[in-house]
Amino acid sequence: MLGKDSFVILSEGSVTTPKGFRAGGLHCGLKKTERHDLGAIVCEVPAQAAGVYTLNQFQAAPLRVTQESIAQGGTLQVMLVNSGNANACTGQQGEDDARAMRTAGAKAFGVAEHLVGVTSTGVIGELLPMPKVLSGIERLPGEVKADGGDDFCQAILTTDLVKKEICVSLTVDGRTVHIAGAAKGSGMIHPNMATMLGFMTTDANIDSAHLQKLLNEVTDSTFNMITVDGDTSTNDMVVVMASGLAGGESLTPEHKDWPAFAAAFHYVGEYLAKAIARDGEGATKLIEVTVSGAASREAARAIVKTVIGSSLVKSACFGADANWGRIIAAVGRAGHPVQTETVDIRLGDIVVLTQSRPVKFDEERAAEYLKGEFVQIHVNLNMGNHTATGWGCDLTYDYVRINAAYRT
Amino acid sequence: MLGKDSFVILSEGSVTTPKGFRAGGLHCGLKKTERHDLGAIVCEVPAQAAGVYTLNQFQAAPLRVTQESIAQGGTLQVMLVNSGNANACTGQQGEDDARAMRTAGAKAFGVAEHLVGVTSTGVIGELLPMPKVLSGIERLPGEVKADGGDDFCQAILTTDLVKKEICVSLTVDGRTVHIAGAAKGSGMIHPNMATMLGFMTTDANIDSAHLQKLLNEVTDSTFNMITVDGDTSTNDMVVVMASGLAGGESLTPEHKDWPAFAAAFHYVGEYLAKAIARDGEGATKLIEVTVSGAASREAARAIVKTVIGSSLVKSACFGADANWGRIIAAVGRAGHPVQTETVDIRLGDIVVLTQSRPVKFDEERAAEYLKGEFVQIHVNLNMGNHTATGWGCDLTYDYVRINAAYRT
Repeated sequence: MLGKDSFVILSEGSVTTPKGFRAGGLHCGLKKTERHDLGAIVCEVPAQAAGVYTLNQFQAAPLRVTQESIAQGGTLQVMLVNSGNANACTGQQGEDDARAMRTAGAKAFGVAEHLVGVTSTGVIGELLPMPKVLSGIERLPGEVKADGGDDFCQAILTTDLVKKEICVSLTVDGRTVHIAGAAKGSGMIHPNMATMLGFMTTDANIDSAHLQKLLNEVTDSTFNMITVDGDTSTNDMVVVMASGLAGGESLTPEHKDWPAFAAAFHYVGEYLAKAIARDGEGATKLIEVTVSGAASREAARAIVKTVIGSSLVKSACFGADANWGRIIAAVGRAGHPVQTETVDIRLGDIVVLTQSRPVKFDEERAAEYLKGEFVQIHVNLNMGNHTATGWGCDLTYDYVRINAAYRT
Repeated sequence: MLGKDSFVILSEGSVTTPKGFRAGGLHCGLKKTERHDLGAIVCEVPAQAAGVYTLNQFQAAPLRVTQESIAQGGTLQVMLVNSGNANACTGQQGEDDARAMRTAGAKAFGVAEHLVGVTSTGVIGELLPMPKVLSGIERLPGEVKADGGDDFCQAILTTDLVKKEICVSLTVDGRTVHIAGAAKGSGMIHPNMATMLGFMTTDANIDSAHLQKLLNEVTDSTFNMITVDGDTSTNDMVVVMASGLAGGESLTPEHKDWPAFAAAFHYVGEYLAKAIARDGEGATKLIEVTVSGAASREAARAIVKTVIGSSLVKSACFGADANWGRIIAAVGRAGHPVQTETVDIRLGDIVVLTQSRPVKFDEERAAEYLKGEFVQIHVNLNMGNHTATGWGCDLTYDYVRINAAYRT
């Protein structure tokens, strides 16, 4: 449910568009080239905060530190991020370094430590070069500006091909409210796996608890429904900061404008999630898989993820091969019972399977469709009324090239 | 446990080496080129039989027919196979066609229908050209010979690069017993996914029930522990036929030579499974992953499969990149709790991680090792005493090329 009518997309918006936010980035020396590798989002007041974190058991140290900060007061005023080094699998020293980053951030911006969050993305298993990081943090306040959203985006990008940012606005209590987001996707970082980072800002008046609940719901159907290669990073994280400076009554599910706010929030999450999937390593297209008619929500979600994660389906999409046999085989191994005689499969609007029986279709038209930048695969199990949608990308020569490249 | 000392590997052996078996193949027109696409293994007596079948819910019709035949008497005398068409997702007509193949096989070889098994591999969702198949089956008896093991192997190959067959012999009750096997691996069949087929023959005197139990155990640690791309075919099947013509007392776990027989049987299964993994689409090397120190057998197996199935690990092996971060990340997302501070990782004998902390290692030596044709990844969780091993292959440009190729 995007409900676009309830909000507008601002062509020029960034994470600093919502009232009270500034951002910026600089190069402190973690990346070999002169690109930004350290950044921050800063709010002029303590912002209500919420976060979701990787389910990988080898969770990087900075994620634990950020969780601590949010747990203490449900608020954040400064969100620090570095790229080029993930500070993951670095043991106690990594833990200490993440805390030192938080302490330095609190000092530099003159706020309490528990108002500072930190996150890192990059090489696993290498210690942060702390002198570089700490001197960079000292210089950050001078780089944090009202129009620094772009610099912040640069600081979180790695080998991402495109910047991922969005801002929408809507009316709540007759006041204008903004919701913005920036994300770092699954570009490979030498020498490690993709990391997904999402940063959302809003000037809505909403408390931490409701923000967390909304973020959980939205993440469930957006960030948690994308896959590039099924590998879950140690550093994945999405954080939201709400300044409340738009004023008005505090937003709760009882508020008359809650549905509009939730829809806009969901749109921002889905936009960022799809942008990450589309920008997967070597990807030439975004693939959207919808499973309907499932007996349960769990079944619908599991089957979506199995289809979108299938290397055979992904490479068939790259090759524009309308290979529905691979799709139904993925459905059949997803671990949830299906009726083997009632499955319908569509590629876009091209029906290829009805009631589990092949349908004669125009191969050329199907190939043309699959050559596009956006491919929709729809599977109807005709068993129940549960539906799920997920996003991924095709498997290409470049994926192998990027991931096989010897570390240099 | 291979226990090679308890048996010998016959350099010239095939599925017809065990007493009582003949085999053969011919071209009936299912493959476009003049290659064998129909074959049979025939026993001069009804053989005790056992089978394991794909867990994919979209199980192809011939598998159901073979299960029926074995269920009726626990025996098979003729095992028919065709390549070029999987007879999967073909509904009632496919069901009828599989039965018609069985009936034709029974007539051609003069045996009861329930003594005939059938299996198919190839295109999904297309009906078998039955006139070609049936006339081929009529001609089969003339092609089935004592030295026809090779022709049979040709008939089950698709785009497999190499033939996969083996025969071992051992002494049971002072008599020579043979166990042989042939397999068809994960070459792509236009336009569908890899299928794994295994055919084992033995002249051991063993009944169907014990044969089934042994096959289940062996499959669990061999055929079920390989992955090429995580996609499970609708047609996977392994069938064993035991002629009993070696004589001697019937083999049961109580028999003094059972351990030797079980070890030899296991060796044949593992040999075929590894041959299939090594011959995965586009593969340049066999990857063996062993997880030890696990808290449970389930955890060890699940973590092995997650690591061996990781596209990032597979492409790192192709690129000879000693990227242990990808391995530990796979361990952390396998769905079983691990102690995040006690993980050791070795590549061959090169230690890269100890107690979850990076170890300085010789990158060049590691790269040299990873460039080899056989790569061993060992993960010790240091949590318990359960171990599991599995096999896969690297992810290469050719995998993408083979799987992206538009159907022509």
